[in-house]
Amino acid sequence: MPNPTAAMLVIGDEILSGRTRDANMHHLAKELTHVGIDLCEVRVVSDKADAITDAVKALSAAYTHVFTSGGIGPTHDDITADNVARAFGVPIDVREDARAILQAHYDRQGLELNEARLRMARIPEGAKLIDNPVSAAPGFILGNVHVMAGVPSIFNAMLAGVLPSLTGGAPVLSQSLMIHRGEGDIAGPLRALAERYPDLSFGSYPFQRDGAYGAQVVIRGQDGARLDAAMTELNAMFPA
Amino acid sequence: MPNPTAAMLVIGDEILSGRTRDANMHHLAKELTHVGIDLCEVRVVSDKADAITDAVKALSAAYTHVFTSGGIGPTHDDITADNVARAFGVPIDVREDARAILQAHYDRQGLELNEARLRMARIPEGAKLIDNPVSAAPGFILGNVHVMAGVPSIFNAMLAGVLPSLTGGAPVLSQSLMIHRGEGDIAGPLRALAERYPDLSFGSYPFQRDGAYGAQVVIRGQDGARLDAAMTELNAMFPA
Repeated sequence: MPNPTAAMLVIGDEILSGRTRDANMHHLAKELTHVGIDLCEVRVVSDKADAITDAVKALSAAYTHVFTSGGIGPTHDDITADNVARAFGVPIDVREDARAILQAHYDRQGLELNEARLRMARIPEGAKLIDNPVSAAPGFILGNVHVMAGVPSIFNAMLAGVLPSLTGGAPVLSQSLMIHRGEGDIAGPLRALAERYPDLSFGSYPFQRDGAYGAQVVIRGQDGARLDAAMTELNAMFPA
Repeated sequence: MPNPTAAMLVIGDEILSGRTRDANMHHLAKELTHVGIDLCEVRVVSDKADAITDAVKALSAAYTHVFTSGGIGPTHDDITADNVARAFGVPIDVREDARAILQAHYDRQGLELNEARLRMARIPEGAKLIDNPVSAAPGFILGNVHVMAGVPSIFNAMLAGVLPSLTGGAPVLSQSLMIHRGEGDIAGPLRALAERYPDLSFGSYPFQRDGAYGAQVVIRGQDGARLDAAMTELNAMFPA
């Protein structure tokens, strides 16, 4: 059975302007690979209503799961929740359970749950809340879209809470071999090997170190025995 | 006059599997901001023919410039050039000028220009070569699509060669203020300020440091005097 598929939508002008370097994509990619969900596509869009709505619609229709990051804070440029609701055509308003979570959080801190903070309790109708153990303001799941924070510590915590409930396929196993020869020398034999193992995926990642060329060849697949067999052949082709 | 727009297409299974952390997006974002080109969207897709072709078509139609990264090496999974050609409906084959560049490079190194390496001389008809001062194998420009390498040192070098020939708009200026108060306290006044300066963009980027909440507020725009005026107001609202 093929693995479930996934896409990520990163929302935020700060990524596209180069002010902030995104960290969530790399984390999500590793976590999904670990549980056997194939991350097939990532899009990064700006804090614009149509850009968000259009991307949510396209990705939600094309993949099993969608994960968004960013745009769910209290400021005017945090418009992710409203546009995910818009993409699904459902109403959005402050929801009582989300408000109660925020109220308890700010009470503990002796801070006021003012109008700006209350924006973070806006939840689309029919959504399920995602727990935020870091700073209380919840994410949510609407349809197959998981809406999470952009701050990496919160994104990671939300993802850790969400992943166990998703049905993963078989974990993807990988083995790699460092080959100290130029990629151009490796490419021919590697292609022939890949053709004999159509159920595995073969990647070659070149590097240059101390003036010498080399490549890290990575073989991935779900069947450990097949992986071992391909790796044995690869080792024989390129002895250390 | 609005700035030219741009999109980036990152191609590679290694990014989506979490094996490699992409570095080119952040670099491109900073460089484009510097020359006044608005990076509006980034997509990351896998080494699959349809995924690449579809993304090239969509982005090339929607934005002034497109920059791709990855998939132009000598191995069987390097299929970017073929699929950019396919997206534009033009033929692709080994081109004599590209072959000559590679031949000279490998002659100098005492290496054979074998079949795998010769793949890197496959250039779509009508494309203009992009110089690769690092490892010779050229990128190319077809229509509004700039096809560049995934290895960051090569990507950066190719980009540096390409940028001066693109017509940038006015550079985007930015000023920022570090405010040591929770974002929820800032949001209301910041929204009011943003509404009085519709020609500028206002971003708020929260952080937590030593247990205290704060936010970096960034104002961006093309008119330095307007930026100064807004910054003066912001400083008055939130004195240090």
